[in-house]
Amino acid sequence: MITEPLELPEPSQATLRGARQLLRRQHRKETGRFLAEGPQAVREALKIPESVESVFFRWSSVREHLELLEAAQVAGVPYYAVSEQNLATMSDTVHPQGVTAVVANIDVPLEAVLHDAKLIVICAQVRDPGNAGTVIRCADAFGADAVILSSDSVEVYNPKTVRSSVGSIFHLPIVTGVDLVTAIDACRAAGLQIFATDGESGVELTQLGDALARPTAWVMGNESWGLPVEHVALADQSVAVPIYGQAESLNLATAAAVVLYASASAQRN
Amino acid sequence: MITEPLELPEPSQATLRGARQLLRRQHRKETGRFLAEGPQAVREALKIPESVESVFFRWSSVREHLELLEAAQVAGVPYYAVSEQNLATMSDTVHPQGVTAVVANIDVPLEAVLHDAKLIVICAQVRDPGNAGTVIRCADAFGADAVILSSDSVEVYNPKTVRSSVGSIFHLPIVTGVDLVTAIDACRAAGLQIFATDGESGVELTQLGDALARPTAWVMGNESWGLPVEHVALADQSVAVPIYGQAESLNLATAAAVVLYASASAQRN
Repeated sequence: MITEPLELPEPSQATLRGARQLLRRQHRKETGRFLAEGPQAVREALKIPESVESVFFRWSSVREHLELLEAAQVAGVPYYAVSEQNLATMSDTVHPQGVTAVVANIDVPLEAVLHDAKLIVICAQVRDPGNAGTVIRCADAFGADAVILSSDSVEVYNPKTVRSSVGSIFHLPIVTGVDLVTAIDACRAAGLQIFATDGESGVELTQLGDALARPTAWVMGNESWGLPVEHVALADQSVAVPIYGQAESLNLATAAAVVLYASASAQRN
Repeated sequence: MITEPLELPEPSQATLRGARQLLRRQHRKETGRFLAEGPQAVREALKIPESVESVFFRWSSVREHLELLEAAQVAGVPYYAVSEQNLATMSDTVHPQGVTAVVANIDVPLEAVLHDAKLIVICAQVRDPGNAGTVIRCADAFGADAVILSSDSVEVYNPKTVRSSVGSIFHLPIVTGVDLVTAIDACRAAGLQIFATDGESGVELTQLGDALARPTAWVMGNESWGLPVEHVALADQSVAVPIYGQAESLNLATAAAVVLYASASAQRN
C-alpha cells in the first residue's frame, strides 16, 4: 500500500547515464542490459523481478503507475523519479510512456527451449524491429514454446522490438545469436518437423491436414525478400499461406499469425 | 517501348501545388483526390487508369520506374519529372519512394458491394492509418469482397493508410462514411451473417465449425479498446480469436488476418 506523500528517490547522474546509454546497441551488448519502456513492458518485467535492475518513473506520471511502484517495492527493485526531460533521454520515441525499466538480458540458450517443445518460431534474417516484436507477440498469443532469432536477425533488445512485443518478450523464452542451420538441426533432433513459410510453395496451409497437429518449428523469412531457396531447402516442408485475392503477399507478422494460429489450434483439437 | 533520351515534362507550379495540397485532409475532401505514393501503389492505380490524374517521377529515379512510365503513356495519363525537393513536398515520409500519383477517390457506395458478397470486413472506429491499411491488405489477400470503414474510422485516403495497404486499396471495393448500424443492417439484409471479434467472447473461432463457411461480415473494433458492448450486441455472434499464451491481446491486423483466413479457407473447402 502506497502512503501519502509519495517520496521517490532521484537517481544519481551515473545511474541516469547508465540507463540512457542503453539506447546504443553497443552499450547493450557490453552490459547485457536493455530498456523496457512503457507500463505493459515494465509490469511484465517485474514479474521476473531478479531481472530488473531499476525502474524510472516520470514525476508527473507516478500516480498513474502506483501498481508498478508497489510491484517494484515488493520485489525490492530500486526505483527513481525523473523529470520529463531525463525520461526522454532514455527513450527513442517522441512521446515516452512515463515509465521505463533497466532489465538484464532474458535470452536463453537453444538447448533450454527444446525439451518437450511443440511449437517454435524461427525468425531467419528478420530485420525490422517492429516486425520482430509483433512476431514475438503472436508467438506468445498462440502459446508457442519459444522464439529463435537467427544470428543475422534484428537484436531482440532494440527498444522498438521490446515495445512492439507489448510485454511478450517476458512471456516466452527467446533464443538469439544462433545460426539458422544450427537452430533447424536442433529443432529436428528434438522431434519437431520443420515448416518454412514460402509464398511460392505448391503446398498451402489448408492442405496440411493432420500434419499441422505434430510438433512444429516454423521458419519465417525476411519481411522484404522472404526465405531464400537455400533456406527453404533446409525445411521438411515449404508451406504457402493461401492468397485468394490480388495482394502480392502478406506482411511477415500477418503470415506468422496465420500459421501459428493454424498449428496451435490443430495441436489442441 | 521507351526510347532514349528520356524527355519528361516538368509540371506547372499550379500542378505541383495541387498535388502537394493533397497532404491535407481538408483539401482531399474538397477535391475528391488523394496521393498514392510508391511504385506498388502507382502500379496498381494505373490498372484503373481513368482514376489516375497524374504521375510524378523523381528525376533521378525515372529509370528505375520505366515500367510505370510506359503504363502512364499507354493509359494516356499525364506524367512529370520533379526534383527530389519537389517530390518531398508531396510526401509525409522522410524518404519518399521516387514516384507518386494523384488519384481520384475510389470508394464506392454501400449498395455496390452487397450483391453476392461472401466475405466483407467492417472496420468500426479504426483510428490508426497503418492498421486500417494493413487490414485492407489482409482483406485483399484473403479474397474479401469489400472493406467498409465506418464513418468514425480513419480516412482511407490518409497517405499512411494508402501506403500500408501496399496497393490493395485498388484491388477491392472500399466503402467509407457509413455508420456502423447502417453497414451491419445492409450486410444482414444481403444475406451475410454478422460476426464481431471480441476477446471476451465465450465462443472461439475454432468452435464455429460449418458456420464459418457461410457468407460473413466480420466487424473489427478499434485497435486500443476493441468493440464496445453495444457494438458487439449488433452482431449475430461474437467470436474470440483464441489466446493460448500470456499475451493480453492480438493487434488488430493480426486478429483480422486470422479470422479472414479462417472464413476464406472454410468457404473454399
